[in-house]
Amino acid sequence: MPDTHPFRSGCPISTTLDILGDRWSMLILRDMAFEGATSFSAFAAAEEKIATNILSDRLARLAAHGLIAAEKDPIDGRRTRYRLTEKGWDYVPVLLEIILWAAKHEDTLSPPPVVAAIRADRAGFLARLRDARAAGAPGLRG
Amino acid sequence: MPDTHPFRSGCPISTTLDILGDRWSMLILRDMAFEGATSFSAFAAAEEKIATNILSDRLARLAAHGLIAAEKDPIDGRRTRYRLTEKGWDYVPVLLEIILWAAKHEDTLSPPPVVAAIRADRAGFLARLRDARAAGAPGLRG
Repeated sequence: MPDTHPFRSGCPISTTLDILGDRWSMLILRDMAFEGATSFSAFAAAEEKIATNILSDRLARLAAHGLIAAEKDPIDGRRTRYRLTEKGWDYVPVLLEIILWAAKHEDTLSPPPVVAAIRADRAGFLARLRDARAAGAPGLRG
Repeated sequence: MPDTHPFRSGCPISTTLDILGDRWSMLILRDMAFEGATSFSAFAAAEEKIATNILSDRLARLAAHGLIAAEKDPIDGRRTRYRLTEKGWDYVPVLLEIILWAAKHEDTLSPPPVVAAIRADRAGFLARLRDARAAGAPGLRG
């Protein structure tokens, strides 16, 4: 492998999995897009119970790869807030396809109206999701 | 977590990642869909160099979850052939979205005509991919 390429192969799928192929990175993106999570404590509160050292590592990794941005909280400057970048939002269609697959094939708690809305119009669903996060609306878990 | 649910949460994304959230499972599906790989030795030959014990484990796991089927080779009954099931093919749209994301944001070797074809018509691309595999056509790597 040439030194100029830090990934295991030139394959786009393999490269992407090198960046965020572990479950925790994907769940952090999920919590940002669907739940409006913006803080370390919000990610740590996810029911899958990510360990805090792994959470720190994955947030740094996602920021290093430009999928999320870390910024000072405008109200409390000692806190860090995280937000999805354009590159991060561009990954959300992958999560939408995963939701559709799981809704069809596995026994999950996907809300049927959400699944129907994604299936009917992925781009429209994504646009509404971005609007909801920009407006600070509560997430699917409320 | 109730005993009746074997996954870490009822979230469709988390459930899917419990099943195939590791990079190797996704690369096996890639090699089946895009390269027409059907044998243990073909998966083992991928340039990402999967260890054979991990490969055995992941093939068994994908078969247990019904994404792939293992069958006796019709020509040489001592060999096993693997094929994507409907459930496995239904996961390929996730891979297509990953390819589009990587083509936009990372430096990969995605063939531009493939990326353009996926972007223009995901469903049509998927149908042509299935036809190519059913016909035993050579994969993207030839």
